[in-house]
Amino acid sequence: MTQPLEAPVIRDKRRNSVWLTEEQTDNLHLSLRVDRIIFQKKTQYQDILIVETPEYGKTLILDGAIQLTERDEFCYSEMMAHVPICAHPNPKRVLIVGGGDGAILREVLRHKDIEKCTLIDIDQDVIDASKLYLPTASSELENPRADVRCMDALEYIRTTDDRFDVVIVDSTDPVEFAAGLFQAPFYADVRRILNPDGMVSELTESPFADTAVMRQAISQMRQIFPVVRMYWGAVPTYPTGMWTYGVASLGPDPSVPLREVAGTRYYTNEVHKAAFALQPFLRELIGE
Amino acid sequence: MTQPLEAPVIRDKRRNSVWLTEEQTDNLHLSLRVDRIIFQKKTQYQDILIVETPEYGKTLILDGAIQLTERDEFCYSEMMAHVPICAHPNPKRVLIVGGGDGAILREVLRHKDIEKCTLIDIDQDVIDASKLYLPTASSELENPRADVRCMDALEYIRTTDDRFDVVIVDSTDPVEFAAGLFQAPFYADVRRILNPDGMVSELTESPFADTAVMRQAISQMRQIFPVVRMYWGAVPTYPTGMWTYGVASLGPDPSVPLREVAGTRYYTNEVHKAAFALQPFLRELIGE
Repeated sequence: MTQPLEAPVIRDKRRNSVWLTEEQTDNLHLSLRVDRIIFQKKTQYQDILIVETPEYGKTLILDGAIQLTERDEFCYSEMMAHVPICAHPNPKRVLIVGGGDGAILREVLRHKDIEKCTLIDIDQDVIDASKLYLPTASSELENPRADVRCMDALEYIRTTDDRFDVVIVDSTDPVEFAAGLFQAPFYADVRRILNPDGMVSELTESPFADTAVMRQAISQMRQIFPVVRMYWGAVPTYPTGMWTYGVASLGPDPSVPLREVAGTRYYTNEVHKAAFALQPFLRELIGE
Repeated sequence: MTQPLEAPVIRDKRRNSVWLTEEQTDNLHLSLRVDRIIFQKKTQYQDILIVETPEYGKTLILDGAIQLTERDEFCYSEMMAHVPICAHPNPKRVLIVGGGDGAILREVLRHKDIEKCTLIDIDQDVIDASKLYLPTASSELENPRADVRCMDALEYIRTTDDRFDVVIVDSTDPVEFAAGLFQAPFYADVRRILNPDGMVSELTESPFADTAVMRQAISQMRQIFPVVRMYWGAVPTYPTGMWTYGVASLGPDPSVPLREVAGTRYYTNEVHKAAFALQPFLRELIGE
């Protein structure tokens, strides 16, 4: 290993090994053994780190938080993409906010009816590093139906004349430049660029690790959209492994799939419907 | 803190704090900050450790593996107990194998139709420590409908004339004295003590961290029972947070709830049905 070791990657002298530790909360840490550091760069926006791990394969970490691993990203990418697309009666145009690694884009383009998928990530270095080092995630970034741009998605959404059937908000954690992505003014801007029947999905964190974000996002969505639902799924490398998603709609019921998609490993129409069966403790948290 | 610090609880000098680290696999560790050590004892069978953690409350660790935390045990206890009981047409007698902490027993006794619940744990110290230090789990161990015994459950099941409608196998990980609990000869013995329509549920580990145990348990159950199904749920402090359960039946369909239960925080009849919607990657692992 020639690169310098910096937190969150540290050498464990007792075990003679190198570990990546994510501080999921102040009191809860997840650690993955690291075989090698593949890429490290401090950009204008964040610290990018890509490591090879024996447990989960290649792993993308932004500002110390695991964004994606090769072995379990399908759990997240499929549920973010296919729930709103399969519940939409006639989806043609999709916008992904963030998601420069390309994993959600790859899932969107499984749908042959999607004519164009626009992806807007603020950090060109994430896109470039994913193309170089995360081939299973970034495989469709050059697809002719993919329209990949590097710019501030909030600015784009406020000013564009483009219109979309489905918007997927694949944000990092809601701090710094991503904080605005979980608030009512943002949702109002998203609503402006939606066609009739439009739908938007967004991660809403873990109901054990960060309930404040979850409750805020759902409550702010409800101020803007007539239909707001929560669904959930497993994502092993996200805090607590229990992950929630918010989905807002201008009309169609997000919990009812209207189309199928082939080639998935997590998503099916049955899994789609099951993901809306919320546990009482979760319903209580969001006042459902 | 007056007790000596032994692995898996170690002082982190850099952070000036004390942490419990579970080595979930050789390459994946989960760490909880520890406020204080409540109880430690090496018994004939295992190392018992109870600690207070700010993230999950009081936490029971056996041989270094987290068995139960106050904050998330309802996820596991409810799904182990209510799925087989609610799918049974007329449950009166329940047997819990292991489970000396009492959390599953507490859930079983929510069903007023259950006349008697027998609990057999091999380690009296687990039962005693839970009564003293884990009151939310052990609250029903003295219930008149509870029949709590300390003995070898395998020996009991091989020789008893008692008969049960539902058997719940709440084992530790399948090593040493618990290894036999995931094999066909054990399932054959369990079948012998089941009444007609009988049902048995058992944890089958994570589909990411330990697929060998999962596949073995399901395949061995299929050798003995006419109906075998898998279901899943979230348990944040178990490896990867995605947890699976096997359920075998002499007749009734385990995925169809026939009765409700009040007072739960994870389980509902809708959650019960949804838990059987398995992802394609999971169906493939168990050949379903």
